Amino acid sequence: MNEFDLIKRFFSRPTHAHDLGVGDDCSLLTPTAGMQLATSVDMLVEGQHFFSDVDPYLLGHKSLAVNLSDLGAMGAVPRACWLALSLPRVDADWLAAFSAGFFHLAEQANCPLLGGDTTRSPQGIVISITVMGQLAPAQALRRSAAQEGDDIWLTGHLGAADIALRQMLGTMTSQPELLAACRPALEQPWPPYRFGAALADVAHAAIDISDGLVQDLRHILSASQCAATLDLQALPVAPALLGLAPELIQQAVLSGGDVFELCFTAAPSQAKRIELLAQKHGVKVTRIGGIQAGHGLYLRDGTGARAAPEQGGFDHFS
Amino acid sequence: MNEFDLIKRFFSRPTHAHDLGVGDDCSLLTPTAGMQLATSVDMLVEGQHFFSDVDPYLLGHKSLAVNLSDLGAMGAVPRACWLALSLPRVDADWLAAFSAGFFHLAEQANCPLLGGDTTRSPQGIVISITVMGQLAPAQALRRSAAQEGDDIWLTGHLGAADIALRQMLGTMTSQPELLAACRPALEQPWPPYRFGAALADVAHAAIDISDGLVQDLRHILSASQCAATLDLQALPVAPALLGLAPELIQQAVLSGGDVFELCFTAAPSQAKRIELLAQKHGVKVTRIGGIQAGHGLYLRDGTGARAAPEQGGFDHFS
Repeated sequence: MNEFDLIKRFFSRPTHAHDLGVGDDCSLLTPTAGMQLATSVDMLVEGQHFFSDVDPYLLGHKSLAVNLSDLGAMGAVPRACWLALSLPRVDADWLAAFSAGFFHLAEQANCPLLGGDTTRSPQGIVISITVMGQLAPAQALRRSAAQEGDDIWLTGHLGAADIALRQMLGTMTSQPELLAACRPALEQPWPPYRFGAALADVAHAAIDISDGLVQDLRHILSASQCAATLDLQALPVAPALLGLAPELIQQAVLSGGDVFELCFTAAPSQAKRIELLAQKHGVKVTRIGGIQAGHGLYLRDGTGARAAPEQGGFDHFS
Repeated sequence: MNEFDLIKRFFSRPTHAHDLGVGDDCSLLTPTAGMQLATSVDMLVEGQHFFSDVDPYLLGHKSLAVNLSDLGAMGAVPRACWLALSLPRVDADWLAAFSAGFFHLAEQANCPLLGGDTTRSPQGIVISITVMGQLAPAQALRRSAAQEGDDIWLTGHLGAADIALRQMLGTMTSQPELLAACRPALEQPWPPYRFGAALADVAHAAIDISDGLVQDLRHILSASQCAATLDLQALPVAPALLGLAPELIQQAVLSGGDVFELCFTAAPSQAKRIELLAQKHGVKVTRIGGIQAGHGLYLRDGTGARAAPEQGGFDHFS
């Protein structure tokens, strides 16, 4: 099977009317008049971002999910995507499963695949996805838009992906039931991209916390030139983690990566509206802290004591 | 140096006003009212599309050039690009040279880098570039738009990239002067992307012949459901090749890949306009044949005899 057959067989699907998909030098897309376009590109490398024996259906899903997460974090509605795929060999079963997982999510998100590239790579699988969304001008949830006095909100739960990854890497003893409960968070994330788009005229700043809550929230603080305090007791720990050692939970929750949830800031006056929007989209939201003047990130424990994560008790960040 | 420092140091450059570049979850771009967007994605893999010891400046240039070539083949004017780059290690000298080659062409093409992704890959370098251009609706040079009676045109010269590659792979004895003359066509192509955009309301179908003239012209024939005859004696052979064996020249010219020139079709009445446009853009153009009813690709030699490339004398295609 040559490259062209392969593209046709697995990756040609109908596109919106007026768009041109796979099969020419470029795809064509007609932007909606007056809208801005938000674009994100993510590259996933075998052995680095996923295990070689990962279920290809789940890999197809996750490859697109991590990009939809970026659109949601910008407040954009998905519009189209492109897939560049480099494979050591043409394996029809693998491609059938990968494309099924990819298209299942693409169809749910109304985000047609318009084109891309497939190549052979002797070394391993590399996936690069470009996703484009649209939003009204000046409504983007930029990292630089947090304001003093804002609440800090988070979607979903924290910690499960990290606990799954630790077990799969062997840095933590595997517990079959715990692994089974945590693994979907790592392998099949469902980022709240629709909710993110709905937040565009409600929230100020947003980011997806794929590199972990503390690291990614710091990007907001640095771009917005402000400080934040998180309430440790408010952080929404994934229920499966509740029997684990408190220190391990805290590490997973604060620093664990591969979390495709949104952290966003909004004026306290928007709290009710945010809760109603979340309910409408079936998304769990939690207020986890607030934005203050100054700079740096602080954690507040149950006693009200405030500490910077770099200081005593939080040295796992360094 | 971590990922964030690396991105900032080499890949943050000013963007157009009203656009948002590197540094948020997505880049933002405001499309020009009423224009369509053409998008292309190409992935280049170390050992597959380029040699490991290639000059990184030339690699940066070529990575973007192959994408600009696709825009030109669609008749689109470059608007923005995104770069996903996977590297085995952070080598500041390599990155400085790669980004210099990339940005030199990006600035010439007025095609700012708006974002992307950088990751580590244990195996080798993988480069995936997304490029976006704009064009007036219904002006795209689609593969399916060739018409019976059209002339077939080609930009530039043929064969040099293939002869360079053969010498570098060792499948042909290396001749230092010949290699030096042919190597720029392989390593630093300058696709006629501005001329391609100018053809949008003049030509019918177009394609870049990166997979070789015969293979890519066949994509036009199959999408447009027509036949073509090429005049072998009209094909613009790269001057450096003129001392080589006629059979080798013919193979390189008809089937050699990595050619970032345009093959396009247009009504004979447009010939003068095409020649003037080519002159204005400093692009060599040659009429190499014509489109007929029917199907298949035929070659006509100096005696007027016509043969399909699959038949006697042309079996290197099979």
